[in-house]
Amino acid sequence: MIDYYPSRVENHPIIYARKDPVIYSPASQPGPLTSQQMKFFEENGYLFLEQFFSEDEVFVMSSELTKVLEEGKTVTDKRVIHEPDSDEVRSVFAVHEHEEFFQSLSNDHRLVDIHKQLLGSDVYIHQSRINLKSGFNGKEFYWHSDFETWHVEDGMPRMRAVSCSITLTENNPYNGPLMLVPGSHKYFVSCIGETPEANYEKSLRKQEIGVPDHESLAKLVEQNGIAAPTGPAGSVILFDCNILHGSNSNISPYPRSNVFFVYNSVENRLVDPFSGQKPRPSYIASRQKTAEKV
Amino acid sequence: MIDYYPSRVENHPIIYARKDPVIYSPASQPGPLTSQQMKFFEENGYLFLEQFFSEDEVFVMSSELTKVLEEGKTVTDKRVIHEPDSDEVRSVFAVHEHEEFFQSLSNDHRLVDIHKQLLGSDVYIHQSRINLKSGFNGKEFYWHSDFETWHVEDGMPRMRAVSCSITLTENNPYNGPLMLVPGSHKYFVSCIGETPEANYEKSLRKQEIGVPDHESLAKLVEQNGIAAPTGPAGSVILFDCNILHGSNSNISPYPRSNVFFVYNSVENRLVDPFSGQKPRPSYIASRQKTAEKV
Repeated sequence: MIDYYPSRVENHPIIYARKDPVIYSPASQPGPLTSQQMKFFEENGYLFLEQFFSEDEVFVMSSELTKVLEEGKTVTDKRVIHEPDSDEVRSVFAVHEHEEFFQSLSNDHRLVDIHKQLLGSDVYIHQSRINLKSGFNGKEFYWHSDFETWHVEDGMPRMRAVSCSITLTENNPYNGPLMLVPGSHKYFVSCIGETPEANYEKSLRKQEIGVPDHESLAKLVEQNGIAAPTGPAGSVILFDCNILHGSNSNISPYPRSNVFFVYNSVENRLVDPFSGQKPRPSYIASRQKTAEKV
Repeated sequence: MIDYYPSRVENHPIIYARKDPVIYSPASQPGPLTSQQMKFFEENGYLFLEQFFSEDEVFVMSSELTKVLEEGKTVTDKRVIHEPDSDEVRSVFAVHEHEEFFQSLSNDHRLVDIHKQLLGSDVYIHQSRINLKSGFNGKEFYWHSDFETWHVEDGMPRMRAVSCSITLTENNPYNGPLMLVPGSHKYFVSCIGETPEANYEKSLRKQEIGVPDHESLAKLVEQNGIAAPTGPAGSVILFDCNILHGSNSNISPYPRSNVFFVYNSVENRLVDPFSGQKPRPSYIASRQKTAEKV
């Protein structure tokens, strides 16, 4: 299979142009998103839907999240990821498979229809997780393109997946909100460095491989700056699989938690990882070859 | 000497009411600050003066800062503080004594007159430094009251000092701007834990002693939230010696640098540290007993 997006193979970074569309339906295609929203997504690589879910829905989601996190404290399930320097639970993966509530949320037609509209096909969940960046000592997530990792380590062939982050706490300028580099999804920053074996065991706590170099990052930020959507709990941030994003630490007392689903096109199912290495476990990247879709 | 603000002596945190005025002149006292600004400072514990210095002045200050930082890379002067996990220069202390340019800046009558007005007396420089939080990997500064440390470790008797931070780069929501807890200057959070000997050698890189507990912090933030003034280079942030403040990390490509002068009232000169330990070196806390003033 041709590798359209080689990364971690050269000893110097390269910025390639994106070889795939961003939206796979015409902007005028009828669907939950207006053509203006479709165009914004295409141009910027993300879309912020403020207060998409009602307060009641957020309340239920938060209770379910708390339940899963509480259970995560006592189990040694590999799906449960801890902070780099403490035992605090930072993420729980594959909640769409293991927790009934989040399974049904991932099937919510309001979400599914949006992703079908953007990706121009049926979709399935490539990855899901809940994240908690606790108050006082939540650590940063360094800049990265999800696609870079999914391509190299999981074998996602093309850029045809969209991430959907549902905020369960207010995102404000003080609690390390998600920062995105608008327009960066139109480029692919090929990173330097080889992938160590079972890299994910470390990278999910703190990513050090597959991150863009300073110069490429500065160049892309220079074009359109940084966006950090802020708003009440229950908002949704949709973002392209290849947009550069990250977040600063959180010393504020306000925790920042969210539910995170990645919808991939059924026409873009995983192949062997482009690193040539063993694929990551299926709780990080779904590898079902069946007609599974949501 | 009576210790009006005991800290690091109990095994549980205590929130005391402030025993000192915040502004020492009547709000109506003629001076550079309007009575409205004086009242804002009294109520909130800080004041943001946007674009106080001209672009030309900022240009000169920045060149001087760069010069000092460059020199700092190669010297092992104790005044030069590095990042906790790298050799990057994070701060250079006592620039008002050692670098002619910053000495004269600290004497700038526009700054001196403001501090005289707030503190109701002549003033002198208690501490000065230049800070660089570099882009990409600038680390956080955890919440603290400067006065807590200056009182316990340096022997500053009362709350009668004001810090003045001159921004030399834009402060924006992405580069870990200074965050303040408005109104927290009206309380004194007595911290737990004993002061280790020569604590400053570690605490200037990463402070772990003399920081408020989560519960006290959450309580004070609940009252008035968090403020994070943002604006162009050349702005000035004045803040009371006892206001709780801190900042998140900075993964953005935008560095964040500033010049920092602390003006103390000549009626509030240092005595022996209230910890009973040896005072910190004079490049961190000026101990001159003479009639020195600016």
